[in-house]
Amino acid sequence: MTKKAVCLISGGLDSAVTAFTAKKQEYDIYALSFRYGQRHTKELSCAKKISKAVGAKDHIILPIDLQKFGGSSLLSSSTQKITNHPVKDIGKRIPSTYVPARNTIFLSFALAYAETINADAIFIGVNAVDYSAYPDCRPDYIKMFQQLAHLATRQGVEGKTVRIKAPLLHLTKAEIVKKGVRLNVPFSQTWSCYRGEATACGRCDSCLLRLKGFQEANMKDPLPYALK
Amino acid sequence: MTKKAVCLISGGLDSAVTAFTAKKQEYDIYALSFRYGQRHTKELSCAKKISKAVGAKDHIILPIDLQKFGGSSLLSSSTQKITNHPVKDIGKRIPSTYVPARNTIFLSFALAYAETINADAIFIGVNAVDYSAYPDCRPDYIKMFQQLAHLATRQGVEGKTVRIKAPLLHLTKAEIVKKGVRLNVPFSQTWSCYRGEATACGRCDSCLLRLKGFQEANMKDPLPYALK
Repeated sequence: MTKKAVCLISGGLDSAVTAFTAKKQEYDIYALSFRYGQRHTKELSCAKKISKAVGAKDHIILPIDLQKFGGSSLLSSSTQKITNHPVKDIGKRIPSTYVPARNTIFLSFALAYAETINADAIFIGVNAVDYSAYPDCRPDYIKMFQQLAHLATRQGVEGKTVRIKAPLLHLTKAEIVKKGVRLNVPFSQTWSCYRGEATACGRCDSCLLRLKGFQEANMKDPLPYALK
Repeated sequence: MTKKAVCLISGGLDSAVTAFTAKKQEYDIYALSFRYGQRHTKELSCAKKISKAVGAKDHIILPIDLQKFGGSSLLSSSTQKITNHPVKDIGKRIPSTYVPARNTIFLSFALAYAETINADAIFIGVNAVDYSAYPDCRPDYIKMFQQLAHLATRQGVEGKTVRIKAPLLHLTKAEIVKKGVRLNVPFSQTWSCYRGEATACGRCDSCLLRLKGFQEANMKDPLPYALK
């Protein structure tokens, strides 16, 4: 019988490698993305390309208005500047780009989707090694959401629980890049920069982590950068 | 110092009594409701009235499109009929009105709201006694979400966790009605019927539970009913 997975696809590198991991594991893929008030929609156009490239059976893009709450420099309504950090300082403190409860909201919708299509798994590209110190990217958090999913749903009551799969959780950014190479992930169709310009800025935390990953994997990032 | 609480207000009886409980406990109230594709918006106009009556500092009504997923007879896009049950059978099985992951989604947004205003508590009107067998109304579920909230947020990392408060969790519907009387809840401004007609139908599970509550509390429900 076919296995079904809901894959959270942001358009970034990590979620792309995650979706291709689900494909490799022979899941039928149901992609889910959000228009949540991010500063630019470049990510979302990449999410569409990745969903197509991975052969998703369906792709839901859900508008949700996180701007109503605010609280993050990553939201387009924010007047707060996105602060860059030297690469050695990334991950030491929760940065301004943290969006309150974002992964909990994303996983909740993925859970609703999973339950309606009777999916076996939810794939999410969180990572706790070369990461930005977001609290909702930690292994304990993912484990706890798994337990919550069991209690929250009809599936759980009936004895089937959707698995929360985070295949990149314990990988370095370089290992993620190498995994992506093995899985033929079209890196040029992903976008990581917090800014949505024609070229990636090469300075924000997200660009720095990505560039560090490619560098340590001895690979060239196909994206154009303003700064090299 | 003032305590702040996010109160999930649906417009129904339970969430109204819950919000007035928060007020009694001297919280400043920040109300949160959802336009999620329910069959009628009568509930939402009641949510506005209750927010006002309880003196909420703010009231966010968030549109979220649960219809994209479907899976419930309570959604307006559903072609499924809402099935009525004899009152003795309510709560024995998960009914068609169950909306996949709804409380998880609602609590996730409440968590985002709570974090951005640095709230001390989230109030939710779930009830596990005279209830509809929804899995996400059970005490274990609420306890688990509390633990998740601690792991998910910057507040948690910094040592402060928002409390998930469900003051009706262990009350019968009659006890909820009596509590509402003590707190001067304007019952006429609440709506429980799954159908959004001029009068409450008096036959759906939600009406039956409500009527049973008033009857056992020896109180008269001020709402007009099609069937008495």
